[in-house]
Amino acid sequence: MLPDSLRTLTRLFARLPGVGEKTAQRFALHFLDNQFALAHALGAALLDLPARVGLCTRCGNIAERSVDNAAEPEELLCRICQDPNRDRSLLCVVAKVVDLIALERSGAMPGTYFVLGKLLSPLDGVGPEELPLAELRARVAEGVGEIIVATPPSVDGEATALLLAQELQSDSTTVTRIASGIPHGGDLEFTDQITLSRAIRGRRGVGGPG
Amino acid sequence: MLPDSLRTLTRLFARLPGVGEKTAQRFALHFLDNQFALAHALGAALLDLPARVGLCTRCGNIAERSVDNAAEPEELLCRICQDPNRDRSLLCVVAKVVDLIALERSGAMPGTYFVLGKLLSPLDGVGPEELPLAELRARVAEGVGEIIVATPPSVDGEATALLLAQELQSDSTTVTRIASGIPHGGDLEFTDQITLSRAIRGRRGVGGPG
Repeated sequence: MLPDSLRTLTRLFARLPGVGEKTAQRFALHFLDNQFALAHALGAALLDLPARVGLCTRCGNIAERSVDNAAEPEELLCRICQDPNRDRSLLCVVAKVVDLIALERSGAMPGTYFVLGKLLSPLDGVGPEELPLAELRARVAEGVGEIIVATPPSVDGEATALLLAQELQSDSTTVTRIASGIPHGGDLEFTDQITLSRAIRGRRGVGGPG
Repeated sequence: MLPDSLRTLTRLFARLPGVGEKTAQRFALHFLDNQFALAHALGAALLDLPARVGLCTRCGNIAERSVDNAAEPEELLCRICQDPNRDRSLLCVVAKVVDLIALERSGAMPGTYFVLGKLLSPLDGVGPEELPLAELRARVAEGVGEIIVATPPSVDGEATALLLAQELQSDSTTVTRIASGIPHGGDLEFTDQITLSRAIRGRRGVGGPG
Protein backbone atom coordinates (compact mmCIF):
# COMPACT_ATOMS: atom_id res chain seq x y z
CA MET A 1 0.00 0.00 0.00
CA LEU A 2 2.74 2.52 0.90
CA PRO A 3 5.28 3.74 -1.70
CA ASP A 4 8.76 2.20 -1.51
CA SER A 5 10.32 5.35 -0.08
CA LEU A 6 7.93 5.32 2.90
CA ARG A 7 8.32 1.58 3.40
CA THR A 8 12.11 2.00 3.51
CA LEU A 9 11.77 4.85 5.99
CA THR A 10 9.41 2.78 8.16
CA ARG A 11 11.84 -0.16 8.15
CA LEU A 12 14.72 2.10 9.22
CA PHE A 13 12.72 3.83 11.98
CA ALA A 14 11.75 0.39 13.30
CA ARG A 15 15.45 -0.22 14.07
CA LEU A 16 15.45 2.53 16.70
CA PRO A 17 15.22 1.20 20.28
CA GLY A 18 11.66 0.57 21.45
CA VAL A 19 10.09 1.42 18.09
CA GLY A 20 7.74 -1.18 16.57
CA GLU A 21 6.33 -1.42 13.06
CA LYS A 22 3.24 0.70 13.84
CA THR A 23 5.14 3.52 15.53
CA ALA A 24 7.74 3.50 12.75
CA GLN A 25 5.01 3.90 10.13
CA ARG A 26 3.47 6.72 12.17
CA PHE A 27 6.87 8.49 12.17
CA ALA A 28 7.26 8.01 8.40
CA LEU A 29 3.75 9.27 7.60
CA HIS A 30 4.17 12.26 9.91
CA PHE A 31 6.46 13.95 7.38
CA LEU A 32 3.66 14.03 4.79
CA ASP A 33 1.66 16.18 7.19
CA ASN A 34 3.43 19.37 6.08
CA GLN A 35 6.64 18.27 7.79
CA PHE A 36 9.08 18.02 4.88
CA ALA A 37 11.19 20.71 6.58
CA LEU A 38 11.54 18.41 9.60
CA ALA A 39 12.46 15.49 7.30
CA HIS A 40 15.16 17.65 5.76
CA ALA A 41 16.57 18.88 9.09
CA LEU A 42 16.52 15.40 10.63
CA GLY A 43 18.07 13.85 7.53
CA ALA A 44 20.86 16.41 7.42
CA ALA A 45 21.57 16.04 11.17
CA LEU A 46 21.79 12.26 10.82
CA LEU A 47 24.11 12.35 7.81
CA ASP A 48 26.30 14.86 9.62
CA LEU A 49 26.50 12.83 12.85
CA PRO A 50 29.46 10.47 12.17
CA ALA A 51 31.64 13.46 11.27
CA ARG A 52 30.66 15.32 14.43
CA VAL A 53 30.73 12.76 17.23
CA GLY A 54 32.41 9.50 18.17
CA LEU A 55 33.33 7.53 21.24
CA CYS A 56 36.25 8.66 23.40
CA THR A 57 39.14 6.29 22.69
CA ARG A 58 40.15 6.53 26.35
CA CYS A 59 36.88 6.03 28.26
CA GLY A 60 34.09 5.27 25.76
CA ASN A 61 32.13 8.44 26.54
CA ILE A 62 30.63 10.51 23.72
CA ALA A 63 33.28 12.81 22.24
CA GLU A 64 32.89 15.71 19.86
CA ARG A 65 35.08 15.74 16.76
CA SER A 66 36.55 19.10 15.87
CA VAL A 67 35.29 20.20 12.46
CA ASP A 68 38.83 20.64 11.07
CA ASN A 69 39.67 17.10 12.16
CA ALA A 70 36.60 15.19 11.04
CA ALA A 71 38.56 12.23 9.69
CA GLU A 72 39.01 9.33 12.10
CA PRO A 73 41.81 10.48 14.41
CA GLU A 74 44.19 8.17 16.25
CA GLU A 75 42.88 9.45 19.55
CA LEU A 76 39.55 11.12 20.20
CA LEU A 77 39.11 12.44 23.73
CA CYS A 78 35.86 13.41 25.42
CA ARG A 79 35.34 16.60 27.42
CA ILE A 80 35.94 14.78 30.71
CA CYS A 81 39.18 13.07 29.67
CA GLN A 82 40.44 16.43 28.36
CA ASP A 83 39.60 18.24 31.61
CA PRO A 84 42.82 18.80 33.65
CA ASN A 85 40.75 19.40 36.82
CA ARG A 86 39.42 15.84 36.97
CA ASP A 87 40.81 13.56 39.66
CA ARG A 88 42.67 10.91 37.66
CA SER A 89 43.24 8.70 40.72
CA LEU A 90 39.49 8.07 40.93
CA LEU A 91 37.96 5.93 38.14
CA CYS A 92 34.23 5.34 37.88
CA VAL A 93 33.25 2.25 35.85
CA VAL A 94 29.78 2.35 34.26
CA ALA A 95 27.88 0.01 31.94
CA LYS A 96 26.58 2.55 29.43
CA VAL A 97 27.14 6.12 28.28
CA VAL A 98 23.67 7.11 29.57
CA ASP A 99 24.73 6.02 33.06
CA LEU A 100 27.79 8.28 32.78
CA ILE A 101 25.51 11.16 31.72
CA ALA A 102 23.23 10.55 34.73
CA LEU A 103 26.21 10.52 37.12
CA GLU A 104 27.62 13.71 35.57
CA ARG A 105 24.26 15.43 36.09
CA SER A 106 24.46 14.58 39.79
CA GLY A 107 27.75 16.48 39.99
CA ALA A 108 28.95 14.00 42.62
CA MET A 109 31.76 12.40 40.62
CA PRO A 110 35.06 14.36 40.54
CA GLY A 111 37.05 11.58 38.84
CA THR A 112 37.10 10.16 35.32
CA TYR A 113 35.10 7.32 33.79
CA PHE A 114 35.38 4.04 31.96
CA VAL A 115 32.39 2.78 29.95
CA LEU A 116 32.27 -1.03 29.83
CA GLY A 117 29.69 -1.16 27.04
CA LYS A 118 28.24 -4.40 28.38
CA LEU A 119 27.78 -6.31 31.62
CA LEU A 120 28.78 -9.84 32.53
CA SER A 121 25.72 -11.94 31.74
CA PRO A 122 26.20 -15.72 31.89
CA LEU A 123 22.56 -16.30 30.89
CA ASP A 124 23.03 -14.28 27.70
CA GLY A 125 26.42 -15.84 27.03
CA VAL A 126 28.46 -12.74 27.92
CA GLY A 127 31.54 -13.99 29.75
CA PRO A 128 34.54 -12.12 31.22
CA GLU A 129 36.43 -12.37 27.91
CA GLU A 130 33.86 -10.07 26.27
CA LEU A 131 34.49 -7.24 28.72
CA PRO A 132 37.28 -4.75 27.92
CA LEU A 133 39.35 -5.84 30.92
CA ALA A 134 42.73 -5.26 29.24
CA GLU A 135 41.84 -1.63 28.41
CA LEU A 136 40.51 -1.13 31.91
CA ARG A 137 43.66 -2.62 33.44
CA ALA A 138 45.77 -0.24 31.34
CA ARG A 139 43.76 2.72 32.67
CA VAL A 140 44.14 1.52 36.26
CA ALA A 141 47.90 1.13 35.79
CA GLU A 142 48.10 4.88 35.10
CA GLY A 143 47.78 5.55 38.82
CA VAL A 144 44.18 4.89 39.79
CA GLY A 145 43.85 4.57 43.58
CA GLU A 146 40.12 3.85 43.72
CA ILE A 147 37.77 2.24 41.23
CA ILE A 148 34.10 3.00 41.91
CA VAL A 149 32.02 0.31 40.22
CA ALA A 150 28.77 2.09 39.24
CA THR A 151 27.13 -0.77 37.36
CA PRO A 152 23.41 -1.09 38.17
CA PRO A 153 22.38 -3.08 41.29
CA SER A 154 20.97 -5.92 39.14
CA VAL A 155 22.14 -9.55 38.91
CA ASP A 156 24.37 -8.75 35.90
CA GLY A 157 25.58 -5.49 37.46
CA GLU A 158 26.52 -7.21 40.72
CA ALA A 159 28.26 -10.08 38.91
CA THR A 160 30.28 -7.56 36.92
CA ALA A 161 31.20 -5.62 40.08
CA LEU A 162 32.40 -8.85 41.73
CA LEU A 163 34.52 -9.75 38.68
CA LEU A 164 36.07 -6.27 38.56
CA ALA A 165 36.90 -6.46 42.27
CA GLN A 166 38.59 -9.87 41.79
CA GLU A 167 40.52 -8.72 38.74
CA LEU A 168 41.54 -5.19 39.70
CA GLN A 169 41.79 -5.02 43.51
CA SER A 170 45.47 -4.68 44.48
CA ASP A 171 47.72 -3.17 47.12
CA SER A 172 47.62 0.15 45.29
CA THR A 173 43.99 0.07 44.08
CA THR A 174 40.77 -0.22 46.10
CA VAL A 175 37.57 -1.32 44.35
CA THR A 176 34.37 0.19 45.80
CA ARG A 177 30.73 -0.15 44.86
CA ILE A 178 28.06 2.58 44.72
CA ALA A 179 25.50 2.28 47.54
CA SER A 180 22.24 0.44 46.97
CA GLY A 181 19.31 1.33 49.21
CA ILE A 182 16.06 3.23 49.42
CA PRO A 183 16.07 6.14 46.93
CA HIS A 184 15.60 9.73 48.09
CA GLY A 185 11.89 10.31 48.78
CA GLY A 186 11.11 6.58 48.65
CA ASP A 187 8.71 4.80 50.99
CA LEU A 188 9.92 1.86 53.08
CA GLU A 189 6.39 0.46 52.76
CA PHE A 190 6.69 0.08 48.98
CA THR A 191 10.37 -0.91 48.85
CA ASP A 192 11.21 -4.47 47.77
CA GLN A 193 12.86 -6.93 50.18
CA ILE A 194 16.26 -7.03 48.47
CA THR A 195 16.58 -3.25 48.56
CA LEU A 196 15.47 -3.16 52.21
CA SER A 197 17.96 -5.80 53.28
CA ARG A 198 20.70 -3.92 51.38
CA ALA A 199 19.68 -0.70 53.11
CA ILE A 200 20.02 -2.41 56.49
CA ARG A 201 23.33 -4.09 55.67
CA GLY A 202 24.71 -0.83 54.22
CA ARG A 203 23.73 1.26 57.29
CA ARG A 204 26.04 4.02 58.46
CA GLY A 205 26.55 6.11 61.58
CA VAL A 206 24.18 9.11 61.76
CA GLY A 207 26.11 12.35 61.25
CA GLY A 208 28.89 10.52 59.43
CA PRO A 209 30.22 11.44 56.00
CA GLY A 210 27.71 11.65 53.12
CA MET B 1 26.48 17.59 28.72
CA LEU B 2 25.80 16.28 25.17
CA PRO B 3 27.63 17.72 22.14
CA ASP B 4 25.66 20.18 20.00
CA SER B 5 25.16 17.67 17.19
CA LEU B 6 23.45 15.18 19.53
CA ARG B 7 21.39 17.93 21.19
CA THR B 8 20.16 19.06 17.76
CA LEU B 9 19.32 15.49 16.82
CA THR B 10 17.46 14.97 20.13
CA ARG B 11 15.45 18.17 19.58
CA LEU B 12 14.46 17.06 16.07
CA PHE B 13 13.49 13.53 17.14
CA ALA B 14 11.32 15.05 19.89
CA ARG B 15 9.17 16.59 17.14
CA LEU B 16 8.03 13.15 15.99
CA PRO B 17 4.55 12.20 17.22
CA GLY B 18 4.51 10.65 20.69
CA VAL B 19 8.25 11.12 21.25
CA GLY B 20 9.30 12.94 24.44
CA GLU B 21 12.66 14.39 25.41
CA LYS B 22 13.92 11.14 27.00
CA THR B 23 12.96 8.90 24.10
CA ALA B 24 14.42 11.39 21.63
CA GLN B 25 17.75 11.34 23.48
CA ARG B 26 17.66 7.54 23.52
CA PHE B 27 17.21 7.56 19.73
CA ALA B 28 20.08 10.03 19.26
CA LEU B 29 22.48 8.08 21.51
CA HIS B 30 21.57 4.80 19.83
CA PHE B 31 23.62 5.74 16.76
CA LEU B 32 26.79 5.90 18.84
CA ASP B 33 26.31 2.23 19.67
CA ASN B 34 27.94 1.12 16.39
CA GLN B 35 24.93 2.33 14.40
CA PHE B 36 26.46 5.00 12.18
CA ALA B 37 25.37 2.95 9.15
CA LEU B 38 21.76 3.26 10.36
CA ALA B 39 22.23 7.02 10.85
CA HIS B 40 23.48 7.26 7.29
CA ALA B 41 20.65 5.17 5.79
CA LEU B 42 17.96 6.99 7.78
CA GLY B 43 19.43 10.40 6.97
CA ALA B 44 19.60 9.63 3.25
CA ALA B 45 16.02 8.25 3.22
CA LEU B 46 14.73 11.39 4.96
CA LEU B 47 16.52 13.80 2.63
CA ASP B 48 15.24 11.83 -0.35
CA LEU B 49 11.62 11.77 0.85
CA PRO B 50 10.23 15.10 -0.52
CA ALA B 51 11.44 14.19 -4.02
CA ARG B 52 9.83 10.75 -3.82
CA VAL B 53 6.40 11.27 -2.29
CA GLY B 54 3.73 13.94 -1.94
CA LEU B 55 0.01 14.20 -1.39
CA CYS B 56 -2.40 13.40 -4.24
CA THR B 57 -3.73 16.72 -5.54
CA ARG B 58 -7.08 15.06 -6.15
CA CYS B 59 -7.79 13.14 -2.92
CA GLY B 60 -5.01 13.90 -0.41
CA ASN B 61 -3.72 10.32 -0.31
CA ILE B 62 0.01 9.58 -0.40
CA ALA B 63 1.29 9.67 -3.97
CA GLU B 64 4.61 8.55 -5.39
CA ARG B 65 6.49 11.01 -7.57
CA SER B 66 8.09 9.51 -10.66
CA VAL B 67 11.85 9.96 -10.50
CA ASP B 68 11.99 11.76 -13.86
CA ASN B 69 9.35 14.19 -12.65
CA ALA B 70 10.60 15.00 -9.16
CA ALA B 71 9.89 18.74 -9.43
CA GLU B 72 6.52 19.84 -8.05
CA PRO B 73 4.07 18.91 -10.81
CA GLU B 74 0.77 20.65 -11.46
CA GLU B 75 -1.07 17.46 -10.69
CA LEU B 76 0.18 14.52 -8.63
CA LEU B 77 -2.15 11.52 -8.60
CA CYS B 78 -2.10 8.61 -6.17
CA ARG B 79 -2.34 4.96 -7.17
CA ILE B 80 -6.08 4.86 -6.41
CA CYS B 81 -6.98 8.00 -8.37
CA GLN B 82 -4.96 6.63 -11.33
CA ASP B 83 -6.73 3.25 -11.23
CA PRO B 84 -9.35 3.04 -14.03
CA ASN B 85 -11.09 0.13 -12.27
CA ARG B 86 -12.17 2.20 -9.27
CA ASP B 87 -15.87 3.12 -9.00
CA ARG B 88 -15.87 6.90 -9.40
CA SER B 89 -19.53 7.24 -8.44
CA LEU B 90 -18.68 6.09 -4.89
CA LEU B 91 -16.63 8.54 -2.79
CA CYS B 92 -15.34 7.64 0.68
CA VAL B 93 -14.51 10.63 2.90
CA VAL B 94 -11.91 10.01 5.63
CA ALA B 95 -10.23 12.22 8.21
CA LYS B 96 -6.62 11.07 7.74
CA VAL B 97 -4.42 9.16 5.32
CA VAL B 98 -3.93 6.38 7.88
CA ASP B 99 -7.71 5.84 7.89
CA LEU B 100 -7.61 5.47 4.11
CA ILE B 101 -4.78 2.94 4.44
CA ALA B 102 -6.82 0.94 6.98
CA LEU B 103 -9.88 0.90 4.72
CA GLU B 104 -7.78 -0.16 1.72
CA ARG B 105 -6.37 -3.04 3.74
CA SER B 106 -9.93 -4.25 4.38
CA GLY B 107 -10.47 -4.49 0.61
CA ALA B 108 -14.12 -3.47 1.15
CA MET B 109 -14.04 -0.10 -0.61
CA PRO B 110 -14.30 -0.25 -4.43
CA GLY B 111 -14.65 3.54 -4.87
CA THR B 112 -12.23 6.45 -4.52
CA TYR B 113 -11.38 8.59 -1.51
CA PHE B 114 -11.23 12.14 -0.25
CA VAL B 115 -9.00 12.94 2.75
CA LEU B 116 -10.35 15.84 4.81
CA GLY B 117 -7.14 16.37 6.76
CA LYS B 118 -9.08 17.54 9.82
CA LEU B 119 -12.43 17.14 11.54
CA LEU B 120 -14.95 19.75 12.59
CA SER B 121 -14.06 20.53 16.20
CA PRO B 122 -15.86 23.52 17.76
CA LEU B 123 -13.98 23.01 21.04
CA ASP B 124 -10.61 23.31 19.27
CA GLY B 125 -11.85 26.19 17.13
CA VAL B 126 -12.05 24.19 13.89
CA GLY B 127 -15.17 25.44 12.10
CA PRO B 128 -16.71 24.43 8.74
CA GLU B 129 -14.65 27.10 6.92
CA GLU B 130 -11.46 25.18 7.75
CA LEU B 131 -12.64 22.00 6.01
CA PRO B 132 -11.91 21.64 2.25
CA LEU B 133 -15.63 21.74 1.37
CA ALA B 134 -15.15 23.52 -1.99
CA GLU B 135 -12.68 20.86 -3.18
CA LEU B 136 -15.00 18.13 -1.93
CA ARG B 137 -18.00 19.72 -3.69
CA ALA B 138 -15.99 19.85 -6.94
CA ARG B 139 -15.24 16.13 -6.62
CA VAL B 140 -18.92 15.33 -5.95
CA ALA B 141 -19.97 17.37 -9.00
CA GLU B 142 -17.95 14.96 -11.18
CA GLY B 143 -20.75 12.41 -10.87
CA VAL B 144 -20.58 10.96 -7.35
CA GLY B 145 -23.81 9.12 -6.52
CA GLU B 146 -22.95 8.10 -2.97
CA ILE B 147 -20.65 9.68 -0.39
CA ILE B 148 -19.66 7.28 2.40
CA VAL B 149 -18.58 9.36 5.39
CA ALA B 150 -15.92 7.23 7.13
CA THR B 151 -14.87 9.72 9.80
CA PRO B 152 -14.40 8.06 13.22
CA PRO B 153 -17.48 7.54 15.43
CA SER B 154 -16.31 10.24 17.89
CA VAL B 155 -17.95 13.59 18.75
CA ASP B 156 -15.86 15.42 16.12
CA GLY B 157 -16.29 12.63 13.58
CA GLU B 158 -20.08 12.62 14.00
CA ALA B 159 -20.29 16.43 13.82
CA THR B 160 -18.27 16.34 10.59
CA ALA B 161 -20.52 13.62 9.15
CA LEU B 162 -23.61 15.71 9.96
CA LEU B 163 -22.11 18.79 8.31
CA LEU B 164 -21.17 16.83 5.18
CA ALA B 165 -24.70 15.39 4.94
CA GLN B 166 -26.21 18.90 5.22
CA GLU B 167 -23.82 20.36 2.68
CA LEU B 168 -23.61 17.60 0.09
CA GLN B 169 -26.85 15.61 0.15
CA SER B 170 -28.81 16.31 -3.04
CA ASP B 171 -31.26 14.69 -5.45
CA SER B 172 -28.35 13.09 -7.27
CA THR B 173 -26.08 12.31 -4.27
CA THR B 174 -26.80 10.22 -1.18
CA VAL B 175 -24.64 10.69 1.93
CA THR B 176 -24.17 7.53 4.02
CA ARG B 177 -22.25 6.81 7.21
CA ILE B 178 -20.12 3.75 8.06
CA ALA B 179 -21.73 1.51 10.69
CA SER B 180 -20.86 1.91 14.35
CA GLY B 181 -21.37 -1.09 16.61
CA ILE B 182 -19.63 -3.93 18.43
CA PRO B 183 -16.37 -4.83 16.65
CA HIS B 184 -15.78 -8.36 15.33
CA GLY B 185 -14.84 -10.61 18.23
CA GLY B 186 -15.93 -8.01 20.81
CA ASP B 187 -17.77 -8.84 24.04
CA LEU B 188 -21.12 -7.21 24.76
CA GLU B 189 -20.16 -7.38 28.43
CA PHE B 190 -17.23 -5.00 27.96
CA THR B 191 -18.79 -2.73 25.34
CA ASP B 192 -19.61 0.86 26.35
CA GLN B 193 -23.21 2.12 26.49
CA ILE B 194 -22.99 4.43 23.47
CA THR B 195 -21.67 1.64 21.25
CA LEU B 196 -24.34 -0.76 22.53
CA SER B 197 -27.18 1.68 21.88
CA ARG B 198 -25.75 2.34 18.39
CA ALA B 199 -25.59 -1.41 17.80
CA ILE B 200 -29.27 -1.74 18.74
CA ARG B 201 -30.38 1.27 16.68
CA GLY B 202 -28.33 0.10 13.69
CA ARG B 203 -29.75 -3.47 13.77
CA ARG B 204 -30.45 -5.25 10.51
CA GLY B 205 -32.44 -8.28 9.34
CA VAL B 206 -30.55 -11.55 9.80
CA GLY B 207 -29.46 -12.97 6.44
CA GLY B 208 -29.64 -9.54 4.84
CA PRO B 209 -26.79 -7.88 2.93
CA GLY B 210 -23.46 -7.52 4.67
